Amino acid sequence: MKQRKGKLFVVSAPSGAGKTTLCSRLLGNFGTVGYSVSFTTRKPRHDETDTEDYYFISVEEFEAMIERGEFLEWAKVHNNYYGTSRKTVEDILATGKDVLLDIDPKGARQLKNSLDYGIYIFITAPSMEDLKTRLINRRTESEEIMNIRLTNALEEVQHIHEYDYLIVNKEINRAYNDLEAIYIAEHLRAADVEKIEDIMDLN
Amino acid sequence: MKQRKGKLFVVSAPSGAGKTTLCSRLLGNFGTVGYSVSFTTRKPRHDETDTEDYYFISVEEFEAMIERGEFLEWAKVHNNYYGTSRKTVEDILATGKDVLLDIDPKGARQLKNSLDYGIYIFITAPSMEDLKTRLINRRTESEEIMNIRLTNALEEVQHIHEYDYLIVNKEINRAYNDLEAIYIAEHLRAADVEKIEDIMDLN
Repeated sequence: MKQRKGKLFVVSAPSGAGKTTLCSRLLGNFGTVGYSVSFTTRKPRHDETDTEDYYFISVEEFEAMIERGEFLEWAKVHNNYYGTSRKTVEDILATGKDVLLDIDPKGARQLKNSLDYGIYIFITAPSMEDLKTRLINRRTESEEIMNIRLTNALEEVQHIHEYDYLIVNKEINRAYNDLEAIYIAEHLRAADVEKIEDIMDLN
Repeated sequence: MKQRKGKLFVVSAPSGAGKTTLCSRLLGNFGTVGYSVSFTTRKPRHDETDTEDYYFISVEEFEAMIERGEFLEWAKVHNNYYGTSRKTVEDILATGKDVLLDIDPKGARQLKNSLDYGIYIFITAPSMEDLKTRLINRRTESEEIMNIRLTNALEEVQHIHEYDYLIVNKEINRAYNDLEAIYIAEHLRAADVEKIEDIMDLN
């Protein structure tokens, strides 16, 4: 790949845990983060825009991309395909911008197996009860879909140890503060400094 | 040792890099941090209080403590002894409070060799010129001592790779924000969660 200058942040969370709000706020506050738009075969929700929230494509198109090896990770979740294009991510990192990837635990696992870099963050609600309330308040899903999401959530939280960081979203401002702290701290890693002269004038 | 519940943060910086200001602010803002008071044989500065800033003891007392193996680390810097009592640190960590240790790079290295835990942070000024200006403005040291400090600083910054994080103190509020981000992020480590049930209600 091209020279990687930015950092890759991978964020996973059960539906309803507040991931989208938190990630949008980070993107809004830091011009240094580029959002890698995913591909999906699911139908757009009323507030979603093609090429901004997702590239909404057909099952046929998606499977052709799998065939051509164009995905860094892909998965079938809730009967829909979701995938991250390798080219999209590598192009952003090469410009020096960071990438924030919003993907489910199965995708995160694929990514972790195929990349030797990346910071993995899991966001969860404080309880299943809370998660259920948030999904009900969202009113965008049928009860059947909601139950699938809750079952998936129970399974997903068992995998938190595959992540570097864990944010429990009890209160949105506090959770955002946590996400921002991780983002800032990861840019202060001493291991990233090649020569002290790059950051400090010794004369 | 007793069961360790808190986290150990080790902060090093050349004299004049702003370490004391930054650490005091963190201690003031987070009641969860206990300050481990060091032992020293140097004379107190006019604004320093015994048992608060340091335990100011005699060379004879200090050497007796070395003899009895009571130090987690100790060093002779600028012709004075400085040391961290193992008991002080372990007692604080056992209560669940974190410990912030303010020690020089030689002490940090001893600590890192003898402990399998700890988060190491190096704070530096943006340039040697800046460091010199800050030392001059402090007006507490003779020119001879100041020159020793500057020579030491040049040597110390060569060891930043022994640290986990590096903060360049260009501007005090920004540098404090960095320190706080590290402190918060390190409390979000997924590896610290033994069971998901400890942080989330699954029922």
